[in-house]
Amino acid sequence: MAFELYYWPDIQGRGEFVRLALEQAGAPYVDVTRERGVQALLRFMESEAPRPPFAPPCLRDGTLVIAQVAAILLHLGPRLRLAPTDEADRLWVHQIQLTLADLVVEAHDTHHPLGADLYYEEQEPEALRRAKTFRERRMPKFLGWLERILDRNPAGPEWLVGKSVTYADLSAFQVVEGLSYAFPVAMTHALKAAPRLAVLAARVRALPNVAAYLASPRRIPFNNSGIFRRYPELDD
Amino acid sequence: MAFELYYWPDIQGRGEFVRLALEQAGAPYVDVTRERGVQALLRFMESEAPRPPFAPPCLRDGTLVIAQVAAILLHLGPRLRLAPTDEADRLWVHQIQLTLADLVVEAHDTHHPLGADLYYEEQEPEALRRAKTFRERRMPKFLGWLERILDRNPAGPEWLVGKSVTYADLSAFQVVEGLSYAFPVAMTHALKAAPRLAVLAARVRALPNVAAYLASPRRIPFNNSGIFRRYPELDD
Repeated sequence: MAFELYYWPDIQGRGEFVRLALEQAGAPYVDVTRERGVQALLRFMESEAPRPPFAPPCLRDGTLVIAQVAAILLHLGPRLRLAPTDEADRLWVHQIQLTLADLVVEAHDTHHPLGADLYYEEQEPEALRRAKTFRERRMPKFLGWLERILDRNPAGPEWLVGKSVTYADLSAFQVVEGLSYAFPVAMTHALKAAPRLAVLAARVRALPNVAAYLASPRRIPFNNSGIFRRYPELDD
Repeated sequence: MAFELYYWPDIQGRGEFVRLALEQAGAPYVDVTRERGVQALLRFMESEAPRPPFAPPCLRDGTLVIAQVAAILLHLGPRLRLAPTDEADRLWVHQIQLTLADLVVEAHDTHHPLGADLYYEEQEPEALRRAKTFRERRMPKFLGWLERILDRNPAGPEWLVGKSVTYADLSAFQVVEGLSYAFPVAMTHALKAAPRLAVLAARVRALPNVAAYLASPRRIPFNNSGIFRRYPELDD
């Protein structure tokens, strides 16, 4: 049976980490709101299910419903052959994913430091201050950590963990794409200091299934409603 | 062999979620920096290990080193009998933990909306705005979700998942404690709307091992260096 992904239809957002895993694996899935409209998500979130999700994205796999990107990928990883078989390796992939999730929160908060229920325009001065710290300190710290992981991978710097692609590689690619969209100037410098990560992102981009997905209409373009937004003043 | 926890010695912080699990299970552990000083953590973080942690807390279990609270608890859960045996149930506990981790980030950002490298005093006006949104919208949303989980647990509202205590219950307790320290006024109202959660927190507090821990010098008091801080102006 096809997986069902419940997420907003107009943004990559957090759902994109799940889409990339499903696409790379060639797994059958329904991106529910893109077929049936956003009402399907709203109804789903208001369901009386005994295990209510807190927020999208959610994945339905048969009778199982899972929210939280990292939990979804923890579940999908072995099923899509995007996680190692060894338990310690699998936990390491998960740990990387959790740290990428932290980075995603901080990237989002560059444009919404005071909270998501105010418009960007209502918090632009604060966003300028938060983005400066993010660009100068936090982003290099996160990217430097990924670079170090590649550098230290005993199997070589081709992938983050072991010698095959995992969902952590796909997510690292998405983060590099998103940050490059949001902060093109800062990322040009940052990737010079993280050459292995830049190569990893290019390697993921060239995976046949990923490449086909990126070229398809299923890949929603980046836009200023998602997590990664291009406000040039925040990259300056 | 005893577990080793690497975390800051002067705050509860994120390490507290791990401490509570170890204490409730009566597991042997060394809180490394409290015995050997903070230098032990700094050296540990700078190690040349092939799998470098991004940030504390970290747990060492034999040769395995794990960072990220949710990953640590995912690993410890079955070993400490603080997770269900069924895989779907275990994923649900993990999903709750991940959502509590999101709440923790937002609680932290009430006093540091512009970033952790500026002092609170340098971002107090922004903190006032962010805290208002947090108190009025986000906190009730998170607590309401926990209340709903208790309400819908087919095994009854005693615990979040199934009919025994899991690490998610311990973490929910810690969040209620922390928010009650940081926002005593707002939490008095919020807990009236979440009576099952208030009872859960009291139930966890009364577990013999938890009660003994809380009464011991091992429990670091809340203070204004941790995640949950009491700035009365943010609760007004």
